Amino acid sequence: MGEAVGVGLIGLGVVGSGVVRALAERGEYFARQVGAPIVVRRAAVRDPAKPRNAPIDPALITADVDSLLADPAIQVVIEVMGGEEPAHRYVRQALEAGKHVVTANKELMAKRGPELLALARERGCYLLFEASVGGGIPLIAPLRRDLLANRIASVRAIINGTTNYILTRMAQEGADYAEALAEAQRLGYAEPDPTNDVEGYDAAYKLAVLATLAFRTRVAPEQIRTEGITRLSARDFLYAAELGYVIKLVAVAERRDRGLLARVAPVLLHRDEPLAKVDGVYNAVQIVGDLTGMVLFEGRGAGAEPTASAVIADLLEIAEAVVHRVPNRAAWSPEEELPILGPEEIENRYYIRVTVADRPGVLARLAKCLGDNDVSIAAVNQKEANEDQQTAELVIMTHRARESAVLKALAEIAELPVVSEVSTFLRVEE
Amino acid sequence: MGEAVGVGLIGLGVVGSGVVRALAERGEYFARQVGAPIVVRRAAVRDPAKPRNAPIDPALITADVDSLLADPAIQVVIEVMGGEEPAHRYVRQALEAGKHVVTANKELMAKRGPELLALARERGCYLLFEASVGGGIPLIAPLRRDLLANRIASVRAIINGTTNYILTRMAQEGADYAEALAEAQRLGYAEPDPTNDVEGYDAAYKLAVLATLAFRTRVAPEQIRTEGITRLSARDFLYAAELGYVIKLVAVAERRDRGLLARVAPVLLHRDEPLAKVDGVYNAVQIVGDLTGMVLFEGRGAGAEPTASAVIADLLEIAEAVVHRVPNRAAWSPEEELPILGPEEIENRYYIRVTVADRPGVLARLAKCLGDNDVSIAAVNQKEANEDQQTAELVIMTHRARESAVLKALAEIAELPVVSEVSTFLRVEE
Repeated sequence: MGEAVGVGLIGLGVVGSGVVRALAERGEYFARQVGAPIVVRRAAVRDPAKPRNAPIDPALITADVDSLLADPAIQVVIEVMGGEEPAHRYVRQALEAGKHVVTANKELMAKRGPELLALARERGCYLLFEASVGGGIPLIAPLRRDLLANRIASVRAIINGTTNYILTRMAQEGADYAEALAEAQRLGYAEPDPTNDVEGYDAAYKLAVLATLAFRTRVAPEQIRTEGITRLSARDFLYAAELGYVIKLVAVAERRDRGLLARVAPVLLHRDEPLAKVDGVYNAVQIVGDLTGMVLFEGRGAGAEPTASAVIADLLEIAEAVVHRVPNRAAWSPEEELPILGPEEIENRYYIRVTVADRPGVLARLAKCLGDNDVSIAAVNQKEANEDQQTAELVIMTHRARESAVLKALAEIAELPVVSEVSTFLRVEE
Repeated sequence: MGEAVGVGLIGLGVVGSGVVRALAERGEYFARQVGAPIVVRRAAVRDPAKPRNAPIDPALITADVDSLLADPAIQVVIEVMGGEEPAHRYVRQALEAGKHVVTANKELMAKRGPELLALARERGCYLLFEASVGGGIPLIAPLRRDLLANRIASVRAIINGTTNYILTRMAQEGADYAEALAEAQRLGYAEPDPTNDVEGYDAAYKLAVLATLAFRTRVAPEQIRTEGITRLSARDFLYAAELGYVIKLVAVAERRDRGLLARVAPVLLHRDEPLAKVDGVYNAVQIVGDLTGMVLFEGRGAGAEPTASAVIADLLEIAEAVVHRVPNRAAWSPEEELPILGPEEIENRYYIRVTVADRPGVLARLAKCLGDNDVSIAAVNQKEANEDQQTAELVIMTHRARESAVLKALAEIAELPVVSEVSTFLRVEE
């Protein structure tokens, strides 16, 4: 058995505690796997006085991150504090000091991944981040190793459990958005301030990480067109179901002729699509490789234990390399410069719900706006009128059309005096 | 860029040709990934005169496996010939000569895996076998690395595309077994002699490989209770659907208190189960870890290109290690001796279809046989009688019961003079 591998944790919240617990319970098994014991030497937290639900000697807990980063007995730093700063600074410091890093931080990897991976490569250090996307579902490792022979055509994913839970409730119980959100908050699936999840930012971070790996090109979160779920109504789910579709928040990155499509938005998915069947807090990622065809990975995308499982997988890989003195060999490097496509270059079918004045001639005016912009209508359905407000609802499905043209038509429609609002605008993902 | 990594192929059928093709088309990209070019030095085949659909210099093709195994310029042997012997002998020889091995051979790994892995470890050589199960779906790597922090509770899998295609046709079109098999043969999904697939042997090999890895205990194919799909009739799918179930050939290995359940058999799956939705030639493997919870992997389980994707992933891992002179560090070793449970120790609910004489008192006699053996009936449905033959069908769902008791009751029922045959006996997988 080799010399112990020393670990320093930055952060000791639910994930950090889960890691400490697993190392305590399964330490001997892990030691047999890697050839040496793995020992937690220090854990840096904001408030060392706070009681912790983790089997860790309180003497190891410190507020002093620098001392942890300077400790020569620590070869591996596990960053589970989250957020861009100061996590970014700590991870840089750790790599510069020649320490390997495991991180569960999607925001960090989405915003600073390529830069940090380049630094890691330069120092011969590992920087692993399986836990940053999809909790305990292996996703990063398959992309960086198991699917390496493939040219990836697309990544389509349900990667935010909070929104998937909310959308599932809205679909299955006809719940309204506010109602479903409140329920998710009550169960701890949504945070008191849910912005990050419901506006799609969390999913965009994760998509940036996956797409950067899958396509070997830099995809920054701000390049990803991101739309949230807050404007959906229970009726949209009903109307979509009538047409054979479900509504899901889907993150998509897809190689097209002229570049990369990258988007997070609620979309209509045909009910027979594999992702259409992923309900509740489950996550699923569908990757199409040119050799493998479609491969799907599904599981719990969050939670202390699934995330700890991913952190420990990375830690064991590194510990084994430390024991055998193997420097990091492979690291991400860009292979291509793929431009991110704008609405000019994207075509879809669209679902549009418009609230209009309940009187003759309205449909003709809407149809004209669409037609003038070369958007052709595949189906129209006029829904029950609201007699009090003298409004009616029109649900329109278009044929394939250029997204910029549809957006222009919708802007014109919104200006029509007979239109109260363009209530919903969703792409059909196919 | 390092010195070239030399590869020798044993077998140049569809998978071998797929590997050669991908190496030819993507050689430069792979070289950048591993730090050295990968060069095919020789391919050993039974009939070197046969025309090949692969971009390989005919001068490299030989019938002489020994010369390939003796070639010092070959560091990695790819075995894609299939079958136990002589593949076993060749792989042993390769490892004994200090060569790394990639194999796609499920029969070999199921029957000889632990022995060969021990030899590989002893010689510091890699023996990788991602392609042996599930084509291009990453399964072996997740079990050997990504899920390593978990204690695995169960592996449930649809891992034979031929039978899944046949069962899907029977379910969706009311096709009979013979009809669906003929269709599968016509499309090339089933072989002229389909025994290996339809009797469940292929699935049992793959389950042996997965279970051996997942539970770190030796599971030999002959320890797996294996039942095929040949006795199912279109009516079983209809009756199952009425009860809310689909019928799938499922391979299961599950940790129970007193040992391991290991079985391949057609079972009733509730239609909401993830595996119930896996149709056609798709494969899916559902692994439950104590930290991750359920994780599902789905994709095309066979075919030249998906399988080549898996072979190349293994090859790249080894090539990188060769370039950096990293000997194999981890290798499978048994952690536990888990006994394989017999029918005495297994409980399920059961679906039973019995063809009986169409006259009064028959149900009472069947019910007595079951009751005498402590098997309690949850539901009975008498189906339309066949007036010509004066027979009727009884479909029985039992409550949870010990499997040995059910088997005993069925043996007694089969002996009753009023019973023509026990037509179907299926477990409910839950």
